[in-house]
Amino acid sequence: MIAKTLSGAGLRGQSAGETSISTVGKEGAGLTYRGYDIEQLATDSSFEEVSYLLLKGRLPSADELTEFQQRLIALRTLPEPLKTVLEQIPADTHPMDVLRTGTSMLGNLEPERDFSMQQDTAERLLAVMPGMICYWYKFAHDQERINPVSDELQLGAHFLYLLHGQKPMAMHARVMDVSLMLYAEHEFNASTFEARVCASTLSDMFSCVTSAIGTLRGPLHGGANEAAMDMLNTFTSVADAQNKLAKMLDNKEKIMGFGHAVYRSRDPRNAIIKSWAEKLAKESGDTLIYDTSVAVERIMWDKKNLFANTDFFHASAYHSMNIPTKLFTPLFVCARVAGWCAHVMEQREHNRIIRPCADYVGAKPRDYVDVDER
Amino acid sequence: MIAKTLSGAGLRGQSAGETSISTVGKEGAGLTYRGYDIEQLATDSSFEEVSYLLLKGRLPSADELTEFQQRLIALRTLPEPLKTVLEQIPADTHPMDVLRTGTSMLGNLEPERDFSMQQDTAERLLAVMPGMICYWYKFAHDQERINPVSDELQLGAHFLYLLHGQKPMAMHARVMDVSLMLYAEHEFNASTFEARVCASTLSDMFSCVTSAIGTLRGPLHGGANEAAMDMLNTFTSVADAQNKLAKMLDNKEKIMGFGHAVYRSRDPRNAIIKSWAEKLAKESGDTLIYDTSVAVERIMWDKKNLFANTDFFHASAYHSMNIPTKLFTPLFVCARVAGWCAHVMEQREHNRIIRPCADYVGAKPRDYVDVDER
Repeated sequence: MIAKTLSGAGLRGQSAGETSISTVGKEGAGLTYRGYDIEQLATDSSFEEVSYLLLKGRLPSADELTEFQQRLIALRTLPEPLKTVLEQIPADTHPMDVLRTGTSMLGNLEPERDFSMQQDTAERLLAVMPGMICYWYKFAHDQERINPVSDELQLGAHFLYLLHGQKPMAMHARVMDVSLMLYAEHEFNASTFEARVCASTLSDMFSCVTSAIGTLRGPLHGGANEAAMDMLNTFTSVADAQNKLAKMLDNKEKIMGFGHAVYRSRDPRNAIIKSWAEKLAKESGDTLIYDTSVAVERIMWDKKNLFANTDFFHASAYHSMNIPTKLFTPLFVCARVAGWCAHVMEQREHNRIIRPCADYVGAKPRDYVDVDER
Repeated sequence: MIAKTLSGAGLRGQSAGETSISTVGKEGAGLTYRGYDIEQLATDSSFEEVSYLLLKGRLPSADELTEFQQRLIALRTLPEPLKTVLEQIPADTHPMDVLRTGTSMLGNLEPERDFSMQQDTAERLLAVMPGMICYWYKFAHDQERINPVSDELQLGAHFLYLLHGQKPMAMHARVMDVSLMLYAEHEFNASTFEARVCASTLSDMFSCVTSAIGTLRGPLHGGANEAAMDMLNTFTSVADAQNKLAKMLDNKEKIMGFGHAVYRSRDPRNAIIKSWAEKLAKESGDTLIYDTSVAVERIMWDKKNLFANTDFFHASAYHSMNIPTKLFTPLFVCARVAGWCAHVMEQREHNRIIRPCADYVGAKPRDYVDVDER
């Protein structure tokens, strides 16, 4: 086969395989998970149901959902050697590096010995992430060894319980649930594609998810909600936001949380999280971050023709729930691990090792010269 | 841009970008590193020189080489928290999972804070791998806490020193040096492509290398030399090998260490390692594994028209140096980390996030149905 130069770097617009898990930016719907529109799911479903849908290909019956939830609750524990490892990680470590290391360590302790274990391994990874990140966070910052298990039925509420040490308000639990649904899956984005390349060598699921976490860590992929928060924190009022943003745009600074690699005119997830961000701000009585977010969104559209993506109003929503900014991207992991594991299993079903080639642009053939003659 | 279906899965034969680091299977030469033929390098050069060439783009002067070697020697230490982590990993863990976890942990302790550190980070990763794997191996299997530092000038000899606790024979040191050169780099193979996808989100080098290790772990990529060894160990004589292999071929079993994703008629690295495997076997006085390897190679060519790749005679060579089979793939890591880091730096130079798309073959749009109505 003759090597073919692709139009544009980054494989943009190039199909790298088939999937039945989701569609991004296809006609008629911005985002579907196995045929269901994200807007319907975010209104009527739950993250546990969506995870079941992604991992097993269909929505669960009432009994199946209950059993799935009970299994996930039972899988929240952290083995002692994993706790020891998490306790070795310094407080100033990038929290994504903590999850990358913890996930890799869990793979040593509870390896996926063969692919017949893949559904169990996926459930374990899904269930354990909130405990892993919160255990490290509380130990590294407050020298507190928390119990990583709670009775909360849902994963989002469980995360908030571990972080704040108390049962979350119902609205907070619901927003977290919606947020996790929005972040759960997004076709062949870089971290998911990474998980599939790893899976294509028939490596184990822990390796695939460890790789995906390390890839999501990059500022061009995850981290946009954190960058948005950092910017919003510098604004003291709507007027101040308008002034500072104008200067940033004049200086051609990149504003994080806007535009998208695939979407062209809107991100269907934005309206959903924006509406919750507004409710949360009003409930808390502190609307500064939300109000400045709205002002920034308007200016970005008017001046740059750029729309807010799902990351932008997540900053405001997470802020209202007192989530530390450095835990925003780890929350993305807690959600996306469902999509990653679904893609790993799909890759295994019709596998061929992903091994592209390259266009060589380097030195012509040349003779080796001994070191003394250079 | 309209999505394009590629011919064949796995991006085979498709260019995923440009490189100036190596060529695989181009006309006139099977494998070149920055223009130098692997056969010349394996004869006249050293792994340290080849690493310098890959990482910095040109061969070093005599002074540069000496300084580079001294830096690598100084970078062999393991921080105490990393030792603690390695000591938590069970003896029956896949050694690639150990390196994946150790590399991730090192990234927490000595993060690559910005890309100006990339050459230092690459050197650190290159220098530390033998100590990381041998420290864990000796602790987990012999409850011995070894000193991960030695005075050996070269990385291959350093590995043998740590593993066996004594200065290696000159021939063993040289074969290890050659072996590391042969494994150092191979264009856009799956693990290197994985490192580049991770790098394309502008993630850190530890994330990229952690991902690459997890990908090399898969039996379709690394591990072929281990699988070849496992097979060779079942043969009691050349005649026994001939009989058993005939049965395996009749049963359509896959024989590891033969054929290649890119090469079509020969792997240029095979003759090099085969010649060393023969010398090692004769020196040791035990030629059974080498002799059966030669018999298997001949049958595979005569019956299946398949040539031995670089992995096949590596089994015989490593066996003669008393290297445990489970450390074969970790040795691949010790070498390939040079190539991975070179590719990460190259990706960063002309970066665009690698985000392909997919052909959707799943469920048509459908309405959500409440759980009680399913």
